[in-house]
Amino acid sequence: MTSQAVVVDKIKKIVPPLSHDYHKGQAGRVGVVGGSEDYTGAAYFSAIAALKSGVDMAHVICEPGAATVIKGYSPDLMVHPYLRINENNRSAAKSERIIDTVAELFPRIHVLVVGPGLSRDALMLEYAKGIILRAKKENLPIIIDADGLFLVQNDPGIIQNYQKAVLTPNVNEFRRLCNTMGIPNDNTSLEEKTLRLSKLFGVTIIQKGKNDIISNGESVIVCDTTGSPRRCGGQGDILTGLIATFIAWGRAYENKLWNHDNSIQSSELPVLASYAGCTIVRECSRVAFEEFGRSMQTSDLIPKIGPVLDKLYSR
Amino acid sequence: MTSQAVVVDKIKKIVPPLSHDYHKGQAGRVGVVGGSEDYTGAAYFSAIAALKSGVDMAHVICEPGAATVIKGYSPDLMVHPYLRINENNRSAAKSERIIDTVAELFPRIHVLVVGPGLSRDALMLEYAKGIILRAKKENLPIIIDADGLFLVQNDPGIIQNYQKAVLTPNVNEFRRLCNTMGIPNDNTSLEEKTLRLSKLFGVTIIQKGKNDIISNGESVIVCDTTGSPRRCGGQGDILTGLIATFIAWGRAYENKLWNHDNSIQSSELPVLASYAGCTIVRECSRVAFEEFGRSMQTSDLIPKIGPVLDKLYSR
Repeated sequence: MTSQAVVVDKIKKIVPPLSHDYHKGQAGRVGVVGGSEDYTGAAYFSAIAALKSGVDMAHVICEPGAATVIKGYSPDLMVHPYLRINENNRSAAKSERIIDTVAELFPRIHVLVVGPGLSRDALMLEYAKGIILRAKKENLPIIIDADGLFLVQNDPGIIQNYQKAVLTPNVNEFRRLCNTMGIPNDNTSLEEKTLRLSKLFGVTIIQKGKNDIISNGESVIVCDTTGSPRRCGGQGDILTGLIATFIAWGRAYENKLWNHDNSIQSSELPVLASYAGCTIVRECSRVAFEEFGRSMQTSDLIPKIGPVLDKLYSR
Repeated sequence: MTSQAVVVDKIKKIVPPLSHDYHKGQAGRVGVVGGSEDYTGAAYFSAIAALKSGVDMAHVICEPGAATVIKGYSPDLMVHPYLRINENNRSAAKSERIIDTVAELFPRIHVLVVGPGLSRDALMLEYAKGIILRAKKENLPIIIDADGLFLVQNDPGIIQNYQKAVLTPNVNEFRRLCNTMGIPNDNTSLEEKTLRLSKLFGVTIIQKGKNDIISNGESVIVCDTTGSPRRCGGQGDILTGLIATFIAWGRAYENKLWNHDNSIQSSELPVLASYAGCTIVRECSRVAFEEFGRSMQTSDLIPKIGPVLDKLYSR
C-alpha cells in the first residue's frame, strides 16, 4: 500500500502554477471520444470536468446529432462531429478516413479519454478501436471508461501493456475484465484482484466502488475519501475528465513548463492522476450532496470542481 | 377511506436509506415514453422529477427532433431517439423493430411512464401500445398519463386488469374513461366513481382535481394537501415522475436493498406511490407559488422536489 500523504504531496507538485507568462494550451488540452445517438451527457461531463479543473482546452469527438446537443451544453467546449453511427454505405476505407481526421487532432491534445457515451454501436466501437490504436502510435496517454471498457474486455490486446493507459471500471465492468483475464471470482481481496488485473493488463486500473482501488501492477493505493451516498449516473464521467487534467499537467511538468526539482517520474503519473481524480470527484460529490441531498445530480458537481481542487491540491 | 397518517408512515418505509454501500442504479431507474414533434417539456418534466426525487437514472424514449431538445434541457437524462412520427415507408415490421429496440432497455429500468408529450400521432400511439404490451410481458410497472390515456380510452384492453398500472386522468380524461367503461355521468360522488372505474379497469386510478382521489378498486384515499391556485401545464408530468420514483423504490424494498420488517405488501405499492406523488407535487406547487405567485411555472417546481420530499417523507 502506498501512503496517501506522500501521494498528495506529489500531486501538488504537478499542479501548474497560475502564471501570466503561459500561452493558451500550455496548462493542458484534453480530447474526449464519446457522445452518440443515445448519450450526450457523459461526454459533456468528462470534457467540462477537464475544463473546470483547469485545462485550457477540451475537445469532444462524437456523432453529429450528439455534437449539436453537446455544443449547446457549453460554448467553452470544442465539439467535433466526426463519428458516424449505422451508416448505410459504411466501408473500411471510409472508417480509415474518419480515424485519420480524428488523428489530425492529436498534435493539439495531451491526453485522450475514450468511452463516455460512446454506445455499443458497432461502427462507434470500430472508430474507438481505430482511434486508440492510432493514439498509441503517437504515444498519447489514454483513459478508457464505460463502453470503451466493453471494447477492451472483448479485445484486451488493444490496450495491453500500454503503460500510458488508465482503465476506470466500476464493479460490474471490473468483474467482466477479470473474467477476460482469467482472474477467478473468489474471495481474494479487491486490492489483490486490482493489483493482479493491472499487472496482467500492464496498465493502471481504478476499481471504482465504495472505496476506489488504484493499481499500476506494482503497488496499490486506496482512495477512501468520503463521497456521497447518491449514485446518480455520470459521476464516473466527471472522474475521467479530472484524471485527464492531471495527466495533461504531468506532460507540462515533464516539459518543465515551470521550474521544479524533477522528483516525479513519468511512470508515476497515471497513479497520481488517478488518485487526484478520485479524491476530487468524491469531495465534489460530498459537498454537492450536502447542498442538494437526495436531489443531487451529477451536474451539481461541476461548480464544485474548482474550489475542491484548490482545497485539496493547491500548493 | 384509508387513513392518510397510516399511508404516510408506510410511504416512509419505502424511501431507501442514503447509504454509501449502494451501486449506481440500485436507488431506481425510470423510463419515460413520450416527447414528440409538438411536445418536449412534458417528458422532460416527468424524467427530471424522477431524478430530482432521488432515482439514480432516468431515460426518455422519444422522437428524434424532441430528443435533441430534451437532451439540451439536461445532461443528466439519457434520451433515446427511437420513435418516429408520420413515416412515409411505415410498415408493421419496422414498428416491431422499433418496439424491440425500446424493449431492450427494459432490463435497465424498474418502471415505465407512458404518455407525457406522446401526441396523438397515429404512429406514436402505435408504438406506445406496442411498448405497453411488451412491458406487461416483462411485468414492468406502468404509469399512464396524457395521450397514453387517449390510447387506453379507445382500447381499454391494453391495460385492463394489469395490477401494476397506475392511470392519472384529469377531470376530462376521467370523464372519457368513465364513458368508455359505461359509468354514467350522474351525481354519484367522485370517490365512488373513482372506486368503480378502478375496479372495472383492474388498475390504480388517480382522479386529479381540486383533491386527488386515489383508488385501486378496493379502497379510496383522498389527497387534499394544499397545492397552488396556478394550473399551468406540466404539473401532471411532474406527478408521473414522482410516482415512478416511489414505484422504483418499492422494487428496491421488495428486493431487500436494506433491512426492514417486510410490512408493506407489493399490492399496496401503486396506491402508496400515488399518494406520495400527489402530496409532493401539491406541496412543491404551494411552495413555488409562495415564491413566484401568478408567474409560477411548472419548471419552478423542480428545485422544490428534494426539500419537499425530505420534509414529508424522511424517516
